[in-house]
Amino acid sequence: MEAAYVVSRPSAVVFDLYGTLLRIDSLADAARAAGVSDPPRFIDAWRQKQIEYAWCSTLMDEYHDFDVLTAKALDFVCATSDERLDPVDRRALADAWLHVAPYDDVVPELQSLHEHGVPLAVLTNGVKSSAETALAAAGALPFLDAVLSVDDVRAYKPDPRVYRLPTQHFGCDAASLLFVSSNGWDATGAASAGYRVAWCNRTGRAAETLGHPPATTIAGLAELALVLA
Amino acid sequence: MEAAYVVSRPSAVVFDLYGTLLRIDSLADAARAAGVSDPPRFIDAWRQKQIEYAWCSTLMDEYHDFDVLTAKALDFVCATSDERLDPVDRRALADAWLHVAPYDDVVPELQSLHEHGVPLAVLTNGVKSSAETALAAAGALPFLDAVLSVDDVRAYKPDPRVYRLPTQHFGCDAASLLFVSSNGWDATGAASAGYRVAWCNRTGRAAETLGHPPATTIAGLAELALVLA
Repeated sequence: MEAAYVVSRPSAVVFDLYGTLLRIDSLADAARAAGVSDPPRFIDAWRQKQIEYAWCSTLMDEYHDFDVLTAKALDFVCATSDERLDPVDRRALADAWLHVAPYDDVVPELQSLHEHGVPLAVLTNGVKSSAETALAAAGALPFLDAVLSVDDVRAYKPDPRVYRLPTQHFGCDAASLLFVSSNGWDATGAASAGYRVAWCNRTGRAAETLGHPPATTIAGLAELALVLA
Repeated sequence: MEAAYVVSRPSAVVFDLYGTLLRIDSLADAARAAGVSDPPRFIDAWRQKQIEYAWCSTLMDEYHDFDVLTAKALDFVCATSDERLDPVDRRALADAWLHVAPYDDVVPELQSLHEHGVPLAVLTNGVKSSAETALAAAGALPFLDAVLSVDDVRAYKPDPRVYRLPTQHFGCDAASLLFVSSNGWDATGAASAGYRVAWCNRTGRAAETLGHPPATTIAGLAELALVLA
């Protein structure tokens, strides 16, 4: 009799969006166009405050959607960095989240997985319509079976309620799904919620130490083919 | 008849600890002694990861005490910054949280409020025994009526369960207490929980934009006398 405990092919692959499929650092171009003096630093601070607000609003049980939090975080970062953006530039910068550049491996790898019959979904902290707009702009939307948003549970990752959205959608348990994220806290949260996790570490960052390490670490989405083989 | 809606003197004053009474930036001395190459940057990253782990573990409903999270965050930051501390230096650095230097205004102002009969408490994310050790080392412990720790609710600020500890201790509602914090997210959380909040902004930082602004902003604890007058 063969060994019963083999790692089976996942029922579907679930991707985080911002930072995993889409390059947050590419927003520096929009910041530069808006006249920001140190775009990479500005974008880092904006992203950090955006996530802080997502976590704190969830802890405080006061949900605001991600577009609202992104705008609030922009106001904070402008004040912190003493950038005085005119309303048009500020609007353009907030709207840049609707057309964030994808990593180079995203479209070919999602297309390949889709053509091999692997169901694909996105699970995002973003507003569903905004996430779909960004995914369409990136050319990735046609390969996805579902775009799942925290809006449905009014709480942000890594709240376990969020990670139940894909299991409800696919009608299976978390262990039979592969969750792919570049955000360390998201990889930790998904593993804590029972997923098989691939941490996509494109830039050689240090591994999180909070616990729940990923099942595997990949340097890019091209390695997913090996994980799924 | 006089106006009925006057701001009454608070029943007690509740202080946040790390960053409000104690100077996190003073830990740079310990980092320097441990051989860290860029101590201020190292301490900033350590603090940021410590707080991230506090928030994420609360969101994941997996409590670890603050000493544990501080050690986990130290491991992460050492790996990120490629610092190889020997075990003795690493231990010394983690233990530096037990004797963080107070801001210069802390002892005189707490002593003055105490001598004027104002009940004083600390509400901290820290472990109670560690917080008491640090407060004793700072010379502030004798002026406090209570040191309240998140350990009792196994969740971190800004979770509203934490902010109920002082109201339970003093047997009053949040609006009759003055909450003093330098951490913007803590000031926001306390205001959301119904406290009258004084945001202690010693370094001219930008105000948070998530909502629930503080009732007042002070540049140091000496201004508390005016708030309480």
